[in-house]
Amino acid sequence: MNKAKTGLNYAMIDTGPCDQWPDYTVELPGLEIPGKLFVKDLLGLTGSEISINSMSPGAGMPVYHNHKQNEEVYIFIQGKGQIQIDGDILDVQEGSIVRIATEGERIWRNNSDNVLVYIIIQVKENSLVQHGINDADIPEKSASWG
Amino acid sequence: MNKAKTGLNYAMIDTGPCDQWPDYTVELPGLEIPGKLFVKDLLGLTGSEISINSMSPGAGMPVYHNHKQNEEVYIFIQGKGQIQIDGDILDVQEGSIVRIATEGERIWRNNSDNVLVYIIIQVKENSLVQHGINDADIPEKSASWG
Repeated sequence: MNKAKTGLNYAMIDTGPCDQWPDYTVELPGLEIPGKLFVKDLLGLTGSEISINSMSPGAGMPVYHNHKQNEEVYIFIQGKGQIQIDGDILDVQEGSIVRIATEGERIWRNNSDNVLVYIIIQVKENSLVQHGINDADIPEKSASWG
Repeated sequence: MNKAKTGLNYAMIDTGPCDQWPDYTVELPGLEIPGKLFVKDLLGLTGSEISINSMSPGAGMPVYHNHKQNEEVYIFIQGKGQIQIDGDILDVQEGSIVRIATEGERIWRNNSDNVLVYIIIQVKENSLVQHGINDADIPEKSASWG
């Protein structure tokens, strides 16, 4: 991964096309997660941790986990799989989006014949104060592409 | 959009495959944004607002905007386009991820021949306290799919 391109108010990385995401690996104490890249430190995120993920057919997370402070959102963008939360099994696929509260015990797998591609967003539960158009300002300048 | 499937600690929606996202529209006062769906209220998110987006070839946001409280992250998952922040023009494509601080004046467009598909995540700047494995608990139970 190249360093981020940065400006006063932004940072950008190119993680490559989704079919290259299997090349990433997260190494945790006692647990190696193939096909996963965390981007918070690469981008200097201050309000979320985000990972991009590619899971091979037949693979799955080996253990359940829950969270202490953070709400998670899973956005599935390619393929099919299953996510289990507190014993409920949900079929997920391209376009499925799942919110999981801190206490939900979660585990997921790719029980299909194709790669499962998804994004996980971790944010502090109840941290959002305002959002959408209510948080936006529209400066008085016309759109210009130079 | 059907109502979310919910449990004690989760909610799930199916937004459909990305090639159906052009069917969504956000209606704001004086501004209609085709190909966009906000999911916070559908899922009961408490730490982020998230939108899924599909922009047609040749289309673009008509105005710049910045934010009052919220950091934004743009994740591009299909196609190519350009995003402009404080006058800097960045080429983006499948796999590009961009953090924009509140004060960044941003505008973007699809200057390619294919649909540009992306996710925007809005979170309160500096709201994240801990993240990743440090926020996780691993309960003592073995993985089971019943």
